[in-house]
Order: sequence, then C-alpha cells, then structure tokens
Amino acid sequence: MSVMADAPKALVFDVFGTVVDWRSSLIADFTAWGAERDLQVDWAGLVDAWRQAYAPSMDEVRKHPECGYKMLDTLHRETLEQLAPRFGIVGASEPELRYLTTGWHRLKPWPDSVAGLTRLKSRYIIAPLSNGNVALLTNMAKFAGLPWDLVLSAEIFAHYKPDPETYLGAARLLGLVPEQVMMVAAHNNDLAAAQALGLKTAFVPRITEYGPLQSRDFKAEGDWDVVAADFNALADRMGC
Amino acid sequence: MSVMADAPKALVFDVFGTVVDWRSSLIADFTAWGAERDLQVDWAGLVDAWRQAYAPSMDEVRKHPECGYKMLDTLHRETLEQLAPRFGIVGASEPELRYLTTGWHRLKPWPDSVAGLTRLKSRYIIAPLSNGNVALLTNMAKFAGLPWDLVLSAEIFAHYKPDPETYLGAARLLGLVPEQVMMVAAHNNDLAAAQALGLKTAFVPRITEYGPLQSRDFKAEGDWDVVAADFNALADRMGC
Repeated sequence: MSVMADAPKALVFDVFGTVVDWRSSLIADFTAWGAERDLQVDWAGLVDAWRQAYAPSMDEVRKHPECGYKMLDTLHRETLEQLAPRFGIVGASEPELRYLTTGWHRLKPWPDSVAGLTRLKSRYIIAPLSNGNVALLTNMAKFAGLPWDLVLSAEIFAHYKPDPETYLGAARLLGLVPEQVMMVAAHNNDLAAAQALGLKTAFVPRITEYGPLQSRDFKAEGDWDVVAADFNALADRMGC
Repeated sequence: MSVMADAPKALVFDVFGTVVDWRSSLIADFTAWGAERDLQVDWAGLVDAWRQAYAPSMDEVRKHPECGYKMLDTLHRETLEQLAPRFGIVGASEPELRYLTTGWHRLKPWPDSVAGLTRLKSRYIIAPLSNGNVALLTNMAKFAGLPWDLVLSAEIFAHYKPDPETYLGAARLLGLVPEQVMMVAAHNNDLAAAQALGLKTAFVPRITEYGPLQSRDFKAEGDWDVVAADFNALADRMGC
C-alpha cells in the first residue's frame, strides 16, 4: 500500500500501553524487588489498582484548576500512598516509595516499538504525546531505548489528554497545523479526541495491555487514517 | 583526567554558536539560493546585521510582558522585514521571506558536534537549552543530525536566556536539582547566569562563530567546572 497522499510531518505517540507494556513491566520489576526484600505483596493487584486510579486522579486535576497542575509523578505518588495499606505495604521508607513511583519510568517497550520508531524517525518527526511528565518520559526513553526526536508531554501544556490543549499544543510547538500531525495510539478515545481537532490518526492494537482486565480497544472503533498491527506495520504503511 | 566526583545527570547546550555554525551556514545557504535567483545581495552583511538585532529583539520581549512571549521565529521574521530594504531586498514574496527566516532551522553543526553529542548521550541526558523555539530546534536537529534526547527551549518557559526561568525550568522539567544539570556553552555570559543558579558549567570556545566580527568569548572568563577544546574533548572529560 502506498503512503497517504498528504502525509503528516510528525507522528506523536501515546506511550502507556501504546509504546510500552506498563503492566508486565511493573509487575516484573516489583516482584523482583519485593523478592529481594522478602515482601509478600500482590504486586499485580497493586499495579492494576494503581492504573485504575489514573483517570480519576487526572479528573481531580481538571476539576480543581485552582489547585494548579499536578504532574503524573505526583499523582502516581499520591495514589500509591492511598493504596499501600490495602496491599499490606506499611512503614515504607521514602526511598522505597520513590523506587515504586519511579517504576513508571522503567517500562519496557513492546517487541516492535523500538524497531518501528527507528524506521519512522527516518522520515518523520517522532515524539511522545503522553500524560507522563517530561522527566518520566525522558528517563523511560533512556531506559527503553526509545529514539524520540523530542519529548512532548501533558506537563508542558499543563493539561492532561484528552484536553484539546495537548493535541493543539503539540502541533503549535512543532510549527505545524493539526492535519500535519498524526496521533498514534492503542486507545480509540485518544484518537477520537485528536481527530476531532483535525489531527490524523493511527490505531495500533495492544490487546494484552490490561492483561485479564482488558475490556476495550481490541480493535479500531473509528474511521482512523491508518490501522496497523504493530509499529513495523505502521512504518510499512507510512513508507519507511 | 577522571570524571568529576559529583557528575551531572543531564547536559544542556546552548545551540547557536555552540553546537552549530550559524554564520557560515546562513551565508552559504543564502548565497546559493540568491545565485539561483540572480539576486545581488550582501548576504554576509545581512546575516551579521540580523544576528546583531537578536539580543535587542529579545530585550523588547522582556520589556513588554503585556505583549506576551514571542518565539524566536517571529523575532527573526520581524527583524528580517526591518533589514530587508537596507540590503536591497524589496518585493520579496511570502515564500521567499519564509525561506530566509527558516534558514535558522538549516544550520550546520561544527565538525565535532555530532560525534561529541553522540558520545555524551551514552552516559547523560542531552538537550538543547536554546532561545530557538521548539520547531526551529526540532527541524535543525533533523537537518543536522543532532541526537538530542529531548528539546528544551526558551519557548517552553516563555522566557529567553539568560532569564532564570530557563535554567531553573530545564532542571525542574528533568526532575533534577540545578547541581545535577550542566550548561554547555561557547558564551561566558550564558554560563555565568547558569552558574549563579547552581548549575554546573562547561565552556567550549568557538572563536570563529562571529567571523571577523568576533569580539569576545575567545577564552573562558569564569570559574567553569569544565573547559574543553571541543565536544570530543568534552566527552573525554565527562568519561564517555
């Protein structure tokens, strides 16, 4: 298949779930860390509960603009402290809480992510457009070998996706109109928000993202510009 | 020489003059472009005058916060339109003015820049910390092959260097304290501002930056943490 006629200049990527496998990465990281400390914790349960608190914690930021923007590291830390007692984590030290919170900086890519991104970078500007804060995304890129050209983050716009300020802010900072930017995500709702603002869209399914809890995003549910099985297939479709 | 005991986590770089040779790049680019169009213009004179207007144009932004922040592409365009008649550039079309303005996106690195940055990236987070806007720095990185981990720009902080918001904003976004960030520049005044805020400093002389108009920055004029002849020598000093 040939490249679309009016190809974008930049591809911006959702990260948690789309580029990296947060669930398996965190469970493996914490399980190994806990074993060294002889901790008996349901790490999968903690990780799933932590992620379930993600959307509500961002909603709280939206509902209380008078409190200012809180970056994702801060939300993750607050949620962890709320969840810890339920999972038997009591008396954790500051370095231990910090280690767990920055687990979100140490996520592994899906097997095709680095190869696909590297190919796409040869022809397009590539950047995350994630709710992760800049330090989280930067540290993750170093850890996982993600070859971003630049890091775009909700933190820069002081708004979380799917607020319009994020998608439009990305285009503005890149000096592009929305049609010149393609949003790549494994989540139909992220693409719907981007498409409504004029961005191009690409869906890449990640059907094991939530493990046994996966309940949606098994397939494309919108009229996206591209649907590709993985990042290598996306690179094929984008002429790289 | 061994690496400093309390090595930084990130190196942030001045770009115009420190990483890229803006003067030679622009003169060569415009001379070739003008020759194709049979234009008789003193391109070196235009480039030098354009750069001389740089600091005053940023001062105007500082003096008039009520007008909001203007990114460097905008200042470059305004200055070009002011200078054009003096250099016999009249009746230029919008695409022509745009081509000249985005000449600042098409700058070539000094011979050691890409090799040195690539080495430094293996051990440190590397980013520009430049008055150039994000699109300018991103396009330049693609053009020149600069392997940044992320792009930090005055535009993100809505302040131009040497305003403190830029240096402190870079550390904040990286999740680091100022002492964990090293500013690298060919300009003593940039390093002085960074050092006063607690950042580490590295001076790399670029004594041909201004061509025959060079009047300063021939050597280190402060107590910088590192002074290196070029980016490869800097990589040596930083243990890469």
